[in-house]
Amino acid sequence: MTITANDPKRKSWLNVPKDSDFPIQNIPFGVFLTRDDIITIGTRIGDYAIDLGALHQLGYFEGIPLTDDIFLQDTLNDFIADGRKTWRAVRNRIAEIFDADNNSLKNNEDHRKTVLFTLDEIEMQLPVQVGDYTDFYSSKEHATNVGKLFRSKEDALMPNWLHMPVAYHGRSSSIVASGIPVHRPQGQKMPPGAEKPIFGPSRKVDFELEMAFITTAGNPIGEPISAEDAEDYIFGMVLFNDWSARDIQTWEYKPLGPFLAKNFASTVSPWIVTLDALEPFRTEGPKPVVEQLPYLQTSGKKTFDINLEVALQPRNKEETTLTNSNFKYLYWNISQQLAHHTINGCPVNSGDMMGSGTISGNKPKSSGSLLELSENGKNPVKLKDGGDRKFVEDNDTVIMRGYCKNQTIRLGFGEVRTKLLPIFESK
Amino acid sequence: MTITANDPKRKSWLNVPKDSDFPIQNIPFGVFLTRDDIITIGTRIGDYAIDLGALHQLGYFEGIPLTDDIFLQDTLNDFIADGRKTWRAVRNRIAEIFDADNNSLKNNEDHRKTVLFTLDEIEMQLPVQVGDYTDFYSSKEHATNVGKLFRSKEDALMPNWLHMPVAYHGRSSSIVASGIPVHRPQGQKMPPGAEKPIFGPSRKVDFELEMAFITTAGNPIGEPISAEDAEDYIFGMVLFNDWSARDIQTWEYKPLGPFLAKNFASTVSPWIVTLDALEPFRTEGPKPVVEQLPYLQTSGKKTFDINLEVALQPRNKEETTLTNSNFKYLYWNISQQLAHHTINGCPVNSGDMMGSGTISGNKPKSSGSLLELSENGKNPVKLKDGGDRKFVEDNDTVIMRGYCKNQTIRLGFGEVRTKLLPIFESK
Repeated sequence: MTITANDPKRKSWLNVPKDSDFPIQNIPFGVFLTRDDIITIGTRIGDYAIDLGALHQLGYFEGIPLTDDIFLQDTLNDFIADGRKTWRAVRNRIAEIFDADNNSLKNNEDHRKTVLFTLDEIEMQLPVQVGDYTDFYSSKEHATNVGKLFRSKEDALMPNWLHMPVAYHGRSSSIVASGIPVHRPQGQKMPPGAEKPIFGPSRKVDFELEMAFITTAGNPIGEPISAEDAEDYIFGMVLFNDWSARDIQTWEYKPLGPFLAKNFASTVSPWIVTLDALEPFRTEGPKPVVEQLPYLQTSGKKTFDINLEVALQPRNKEETTLTNSNFKYLYWNISQQLAHHTINGCPVNSGDMMGSGTISGNKPKSSGSLLELSENGKNPVKLKDGGDRKFVEDNDTVIMRGYCKNQTIRLGFGEVRTKLLPIFESK
Repeated sequence: MTITANDPKRKSWLNVPKDSDFPIQNIPFGVFLTRDDIITIGTRIGDYAIDLGALHQLGYFEGIPLTDDIFLQDTLNDFIADGRKTWRAVRNRIAEIFDADNNSLKNNEDHRKTVLFTLDEIEMQLPVQVGDYTDFYSSKEHATNVGKLFRSKEDALMPNWLHMPVAYHGRSSSIVASGIPVHRPQGQKMPPGAEKPIFGPSRKVDFELEMAFITTAGNPIGEPISAEDAEDYIFGMVLFNDWSARDIQTWEYKPLGPFLAKNFASTVSPWIVTLDALEPFRTEGPKPVVEQLPYLQTSGKKTFDINLEVALQPRNKEETTLTNSNFKYLYWNISQQLAHHTINGCPVNSGDMMGSGTISGNKPKSSGSLLELSENGKNPVKLKDGGDRKFVEDNDTVIMRGYCKNQTIRLGFGEVRTKLLPIFESK
């Protein structure tokens, strides 16, 4: 089926502000709570949220095989499980319905009132129930930077790193949607030179600039997904802030990896941008520096040119952009990641989330964490308000943004915005 | 509420064979498929499975606040979310219904026919939908044994180990019920002395003798659960075989921990034995060898005396018991594990599963993995059929069993039994 929704010439009868992340060529999927306290699956064009449950009830998806309640759900998991053919048909139909030349909904005021919401009338939710969350570690620059800080220059990149997309399992239960504040975690830390660990608030709370892809149910247990087929099992992508507590991490992570340093919170942008929408922004990733095993070999444009930035906003102050990076810097692409994850037969379900790992570039101010930007606190990052930051402070808001742009279209992910609250105090 | 179900003098009108794991003092919870292809929640006494959905419809739980469909579900998650007061009331009522002196169900043939199943009429299912799965590493003996084999004697136990119950996140999607066979995984391995990794079937597939506890929904994100309150959030326990591929693990695990070496499969026993049922078997664990931080300090009998064994059965041959261990050997108890897991505010949900880590004792033949028993293949373990094993071979069945026993009662977990199949071949 052709992806007619991607037609760069198409305009919508809904107003789309200049430089919006949500032109009619995007059509992402999300879940929101409406003014009537109803949860529904929706999409977004310009500054309008569109209730797909209502559109479906009004018959606008006639001819596409969908169950009656497919959009009247509090997660996208079932819709994602319907597979790529359905996602594509729905997205193409939405493009038609909102096409500037299509009057059917445009001229039906009752229907329009039922279906359209302004952004202040809705509250975005976590788009999927995450069954399992895996975090990769696929930026060579980040792995090298962090390895140097946690270990030594010689020991920075482990011998396995160039041969496999290294990953670990994360915690699903603490993945929350943009806008939900996060408490500074407490835990064990081993101060330099101390004889025993101390307990207290983390003093090195950090963000990690990541993206994550969301899968559909794929392989039965025991059966791998090939790198060639991998994209068939990927619904779309979100921005992902993998909150980290560096002092807790340093003390706990050997030998089984990060645990409490990570699982207090991760935050995602609420609109899932489909791989179909990202199609015009395909690009090649970095060339492998050593030969890869056959199950990891891919060719052609297997990654995407997505501009990324992180800004930090102290309470009641203006924001400062801390870093600019790009998804295409990642050494391992999403097809390689999914092929590796399943090569041993590990089953993937609808709604699983796979983080990219922190996306750092090779230029100054392109690193995806404060650990790297401030060199573990040695060189605090200057803010516009005159202050500076070694790590994130209480009541700071961290904002991540991402967008794609070519000569004809710009589309994006909106943002993931999280305020760091002080430690939780029991009443 | 008193746990009247634990009365050691009570007998059931259902026959309970000598040395059964399921006397009327056990009353575990599980999920099974019946002869009519209906999925229901049930319990077990002797060699009978009892359909709690049917019992509830027939009015036997009158007076206990339960929704109509609480047992007509394919997982225990909702029942577990109802909390300890409900679990206890239901378990006490089941004890009354099947008490030798109670004739109401015993003398009602129609009801009995609806409610009771012999074991060959049912098929046990995974008892919960696991939201998140965490694996601890709480046996000092195991951590030391494995540390010596993976690193060196000096570097065996990491400096953090005595200060915290070290853990990592595992994969929920590959947790399966006893009886479901598992394929030998393939993956990357780095042969000793080689210059680059090779790809192929794991040659070091191993079991890990563990138990796991299952939680109820507890803390909102940001709020810890104290060690003192932890048991209120624990529903019960199962036997847990954490399948491992040692050659894959050695190559991949630095620096982020085990991933593909573990996530191809974990297997659980199907009946969840409640903490209430384990009450008579409380015992103290090992004394701390260094002072613990206050949030980890517990006192009294915070663990359980549970005898554990692993047997291996080659195809069409008799089984050999490979090891005998005990849950009480664990250095960190389940209250400490849950307190540590949530000290940073990580939220826990109903149905989450927490593995103990491999349970090894300090005697010969009390180690919980073949890695330890065979010293990484150096000293193959003898089998009764004349063969031996360095690691698990194709078509071997691994069986784990666990039971508690005092002067008046014996109750147990049944078994978790898994056959290792050859690698998956695509057709």
